[in-house]
Amino acid sequence: MTADATLDVVGIGNALVDVISHETDEFIEEHGLVKSAMTLVDDARAEELYAAMGPGIELSGGSAANTIAGVASFGGRAAYMGRVFDDQLGAVFAHDLRAQGVLFENKPATEGPPTGRCLIVVTPDAHRTMNTCLGASAFFGPDDVDPELVRSAQVTFLEGYLFDRPESMEAYWFASGHAHDAGRKVALTLSDLFCVERHRDEFLPLVRDRVDILFANEAEACALWGCDEVGAAVERARAEVSVACITMSEKGSVVVAGPNTWEIPAHPTEVVDTTGAGDLYAAGFLYGYTQGRPLPECGRLGALAAAEVISHIGARPQVPLSSLVT
Amino acid sequence: MTADATLDVVGIGNALVDVISHETDEFIEEHGLVKSAMTLVDDARAEELYAAMGPGIELSGGSAANTIAGVASFGGRAAYMGRVFDDQLGAVFAHDLRAQGVLFENKPATEGPPTGRCLIVVTPDAHRTMNTCLGASAFFGPDDVDPELVRSAQVTFLEGYLFDRPESMEAYWFASGHAHDAGRKVALTLSDLFCVERHRDEFLPLVRDRVDILFANEAEACALWGCDEVGAAVERARAEVSVACITMSEKGSVVVAGPNTWEIPAHPTEVVDTTGAGDLYAAGFLYGYTQGRPLPECGRLGALAAAEVISHIGARPQVPLSSLVT
Repeated sequence: MTADATLDVVGIGNALVDVISHETDEFIEEHGLVKSAMTLVDDARAEELYAAMGPGIELSGGSAANTIAGVASFGGRAAYMGRVFDDQLGAVFAHDLRAQGVLFENKPATEGPPTGRCLIVVTPDAHRTMNTCLGASAFFGPDDVDPELVRSAQVTFLEGYLFDRPESMEAYWFASGHAHDAGRKVALTLSDLFCVERHRDEFLPLVRDRVDILFANEAEACALWGCDEVGAAVERARAEVSVACITMSEKGSVVVAGPNTWEIPAHPTEVVDTTGAGDLYAAGFLYGYTQGRPLPECGRLGALAAAEVISHIGARPQVPLSSLVT
Repeated sequence: MTADATLDVVGIGNALVDVISHETDEFIEEHGLVKSAMTLVDDARAEELYAAMGPGIELSGGSAANTIAGVASFGGRAAYMGRVFDDQLGAVFAHDLRAQGVLFENKPATEGPPTGRCLIVVTPDAHRTMNTCLGASAFFGPDDVDPELVRSAQVTFLEGYLFDRPESMEAYWFASGHAHDAGRKVALTLSDLFCVERHRDEFLPLVRDRVDILFANEAEACALWGCDEVGAAVERARAEVSVACITMSEKGSVVVAGPNTWEIPAHPTEVVDTTGAGDLYAAGFLYGYTQGRPLPECGRLGALAAAEVISHIGARPQVPLSSLVT
């Protein structure tokens, strides 16, 4: 073991600003969007789609950044690493994290593409369809990782979305190596079915060798291990990682750790926009985990945080999550 | 009279993106803000204030732009003139107007300060306290007015906030001259008590010589004519302009035109954020006016639009206002 951690969770992921508009299902169809998924788009496609979208609102986003904002909102000591450009949206992203009490020290890039954007279309059923133009965030590499920050945090939290290019894969091996070397834990969210399918062969060794806590929904877990049904995927998760949280939308989540299995119900709420549900589940869970709470209680904190974020537009909490803990 | 109008309303004002956060009354006090008013701030002060604000959301704003977005949302034919810079917030502003169906043809500036921002602090009582860093919008002058656009619109709508520098005052005289020359109407909102107090001597001749339809709240109307109580200000308004709408928050509004006076009740709603209430009142009124509706009905459309915008965060309608008209 090493010296006491000075941080609870440090997150690494794509630093994005969300642009959200409400559209019909016909819009999804007309523009050939993949409903409820995250699709990577290039600049030209992003411009075309943005021009077609209705008036929007802009909020800071990015999956791991949402989780980290959630950890801080619970009162956890949190830091983030990610790459923005030196532009207005980059300043918005940095402001919003810091205003939430998150340590964010990566300097904005001054060369390359602008700060990444995620164009999010929310349909009347509250589902979000994401179209991400990664911009500056895609160029995250090992040099952007601060090993000291990683070594000082109880948990290093990695976002699957970023695990998409050789440099960022290298950054995850680098960061998780430092974390384990310092006696810390590593958490990963698989993020997205298509992401897992694209990089299954790269995810498998990372999960096996480096991941202590895994977050995945049913489809992602099945895809990672090539299982036909979620029960089999849960058993694979139990064998491969110390703690796994399998989320199942309105059906709640299952937490498995060694021989133990806990079924956690979803927290009841009126669903307005599902953006950030998984991110905030991870926030609640990791906050509880780093506070030394029992695992089923960590799961309940995850469900609580997820319920808050889906009750309004945007993927960051709108009330201090600490105020919801009873 | 001239040829038929091809537009209903063209608006001119400060082109701003709003940055909204929720803060306590202690925050207002601690940072010396003027509660419920609009204060102009320079870059340094804006940065200082932004750094102190919590996580924000960004939405297009600007008083007249909100009104114009509202007119378009009712189904009116609307255009806007204002000045943004060629940057990300400028692109957001232009997108959101165009996505609402508004004609906006001013090219973004490539020299000078960035796109203007309005830092809006919403307190638990739903009041908004605005701190505006005008940026590019402050440099609006006669050259930014398209006389053909003005001549083609039934009503040219001017925002008092912009009436703050010699060039923009000149732009208002220039635009209103073209409007009257083409047989069109000119509407003005006084915007803000402090704005009226700063430029009372400049507002008076504009109102007398050029304004057909005036929007003001009680305090602004009293300040313009140096009246002690609103009844006297209403009589001055009756004498000076063809149509005056005096808005009184939750007490509704009074519409006066020649010998006629109509009291319009506020439309009941749960108040979340008062930002844009006056702007959207003007939108409803002007939409009705340009559709040839009777004046008290115009007032009721104003109250309806105001109620929609104060029921959520942000100063632009979130549902098509046309869907609310019965």
